[in-house]
Amino acid sequence: MEPEVGDVIILRKGEISYEGIVIPSPKKDSIIIKLSNGYNIGFRRDSVKIINVEKKQKPKIFSEVKFEKRNDIPEISLISTGGTIASRVDYETGGVRWLMKPEEIFFMAPELSDITTFRNISSPFQIASESMTFECYKILAKEAAKELNSGSKGIIITHGTDTLHYTSSALSFMLQNLSKPVCLVGAQRSPDRGSFDGSMNLICASYVAGHSDIGEAVIVMHGEMDDTYCNVLRGTKVRKMHSTRRDTFRPINTSPLAKVFMNGKIEKLSDYRIRNDENEVYPDIEMEERTAIIKAYPNFNPEILDYYIDKGYKGLVIEASALGHVPTDTINEKFSWVNSIKRAREEDIIIVFATQCLFGRVDPFVYSNGRIMEEMGVIYAEDMLPETAYLKLSWILGHTNEYFEVKRNMLDNMVGEINYRIKGDKSGL
Amino acid sequence: MEPEVGDVIILRKGEISYEGIVIPSPKKDSIIIKLSNGYNIGFRRDSVKIINVEKKQKPKIFSEVKFEKRNDIPEISLISTGGTIASRVDYETGGVRWLMKPEEIFFMAPELSDITTFRNISSPFQIASESMTFECYKILAKEAAKELNSGSKGIIITHGTDTLHYTSSALSFMLQNLSKPVCLVGAQRSPDRGSFDGSMNLICASYVAGHSDIGEAVIVMHGEMDDTYCNVLRGTKVRKMHSTRRDTFRPINTSPLAKVFMNGKIEKLSDYRIRNDENEVYPDIEMEERTAIIKAYPNFNPEILDYYIDKGYKGLVIEASALGHVPTDTINEKFSWVNSIKRAREEDIIIVFATQCLFGRVDPFVYSNGRIMEEMGVIYAEDMLPETAYLKLSWILGHTNEYFEVKRNMLDNMVGEINYRIKGDKSGL
Repeated sequence: MEPEVGDVIILRKGEISYEGIVIPSPKKDSIIIKLSNGYNIGFRRDSVKIINVEKKQKPKIFSEVKFEKRNDIPEISLISTGGTIASRVDYETGGVRWLMKPEEIFFMAPELSDITTFRNISSPFQIASESMTFECYKILAKEAAKELNSGSKGIIITHGTDTLHYTSSALSFMLQNLSKPVCLVGAQRSPDRGSFDGSMNLICASYVAGHSDIGEAVIVMHGEMDDTYCNVLRGTKVRKMHSTRRDTFRPINTSPLAKVFMNGKIEKLSDYRIRNDENEVYPDIEMEERTAIIKAYPNFNPEILDYYIDKGYKGLVIEASALGHVPTDTINEKFSWVNSIKRAREEDIIIVFATQCLFGRVDPFVYSNGRIMEEMGVIYAEDMLPETAYLKLSWILGHTNEYFEVKRNMLDNMVGEINYRIKGDKSGL
Repeated sequence: MEPEVGDVIILRKGEISYEGIVIPSPKKDSIIIKLSNGYNIGFRRDSVKIINVEKKQKPKIFSEVKFEKRNDIPEISLISTGGTIASRVDYETGGVRWLMKPEEIFFMAPELSDITTFRNISSPFQIASESMTFECYKILAKEAAKELNSGSKGIIITHGTDTLHYTSSALSFMLQNLSKPVCLVGAQRSPDRGSFDGSMNLICASYVAGHSDIGEAVIVMHGEMDDTYCNVLRGTKVRKMHSTRRDTFRPINTSPLAKVFMNGKIEKLSDYRIRNDENEVYPDIEMEERTAIIKAYPNFNPEILDYYIDKGYKGLVIEASALGHVPTDTINEKFSWVNSIKRAREEDIIIVFATQCLFGRVDPFVYSNGRIMEEMGVIYAEDMLPETAYLKLSWILGHTNEYFEVKRNMLDNMVGEINYRIKGDKSGL
């Protein structure tokens, strides 16, 4: 009997048997099954023998969600935006679908209702995080500000992990005068897997949002491969560093702000902006869209920069090598960046250099080619991540494009995105 | 008395005094001094008071270098290409200059002559490593092959650190049938600093080149912040991860091949290709120049891809998010990559996705947008670094641009650039 999507089957390839649920395959001559460990594995249909077929697993039924407001625990708000944490596998189609209602999140972590109560649960959009745009950041900033200014003690934003750190960085700049915790939370493993990390991340985030003295936009995710604790990571100094590990989010050029344990214990690890519930937050959401990140690499043809100039881009963040280098003195003149950078500066395009090493800082004054770039007006972004520099530059250019004003703002440490004193062993590497 | 370049001065800014050597400043109204710890610090001229000026330090004189061939120790070859390890600070100009003769390297590590003897010392070009091009890789591959096929037991290539890992990767593919050690070595600190790491890196590399049973292109650099040992890192699975730390080179998705200690002890940590001195190495140096690395990030306008298509590029490596995602389903259609990728594929451009997380692997079959890309012909580069994928793709396209041939080769584990079984805790993260 030919298996259909949703069937639980056992198949054999050579000497090895595999058991799993059939999920849709893009190709007719192949078959993909989801193993019990959550991984998918694909085979050429004619390379395997089907041993057993158990017809379609029934989709799990979520009963209606109820949650009651309580007065004895802090009131926070939840914004759901999609991503693995807000998904479940639909065995009817084999695909991942978003939660129908954001309230379904309580099925993953029923403990939440004893830690915080929810002023509001909203879902302005549901998308995979790789599809986030500046438009999404603006919606989130406005929604978070509205909730915080209406009495919420903190915000949890559930979000795909792919670009969680770009969003945390964007919100750090947009949420001016923020003095309450805005916690971005995702999951690296889907809810149907034993290793699902979303529950613990949500529980830890609700302690941070409702009970901590942190007044910043942060990411709250697993701190280790085991379920020991979550890290609270500054939104501007964090990066997804592994495609699948649960402890993928790492502090870059800094320490975590705190550890949070499942019993609610919060262990402070470094300085942060302290909560002040009296402050109003002001969503300052203007962003320049004509900005880009460009990586420098050997044999890069600087003509590529001319494309951006011709297209009217206003700001470019270059992922330069090490201390902030690009070719100036080459064995073949066509690879030198000097003329393209010069042209960009003549057309008032802001050029920012950050290090593609990720860890450490840029410094134009160690080697002569750095000095050449600095003299032409390139802004060296200290120890900022390229991703953070991109969002900060886009945000600043949303407000001004006067060079000295942009430079002053880029090098101003607005929300902890610059760390002037990184100790090698505290850099996170 | 106004200080001049090369003078040792003491200046005071506010309450703090600084002592250092005056180095050239790009601006007339500023002064830059090199502190004794090697760092440069700049001041506005009118913000400081000069306390003391000691006229120009005399430049150090290197006496003539002699080295004699010995028959009782292995014979290797040295290729010097520039970079910090092959530089010294010239206090006459304040700048860093390349060594006049590659033999000067022995001043940094006189121990070398007791470990190996030198068949040949050459310097085909001297450039900062950010200026390396495919042309440089070809010269290096030919030179290394010539030396190895003439009896050298191994090669040491001194090189700037900025792009050391790009070169090690390129040579890994170019040096077909390599069965002797090719050791790339650099320095993170300049020779005038107490923390100069070049000597130890050179000594460790000479043990690997002359005495080890390794038959691969590797990077030999500090394994820790202290001078305890060097790591031997596979050329295709290594990346510069910190702009200044001496232990900046890290294995990605693998373990180091070995540790090397200053006493010559080599501790094997994982499998590698074993030396076979009988094998001839064949330099296969064709590279397609019309290739590029492009990073995917939120709000990326896929029109950028059309530029590369219009310019006749043959292959693009996309630094996609996490498992290999780019936007397919967006709140604004203009941000979807589908049409641009489709167009690229229609024009027979090879598209490769690697993960911008750096650690972990891509997998198109977990989420639907990965499947969409895979179906359009995007090649998912397993756990290869984007940098390695770029050099491998350029090298393959130098030989064929038939899609299935390119795909088969990209996914063929040629020189250990793919690790099919990464354990989370062995990934190097």
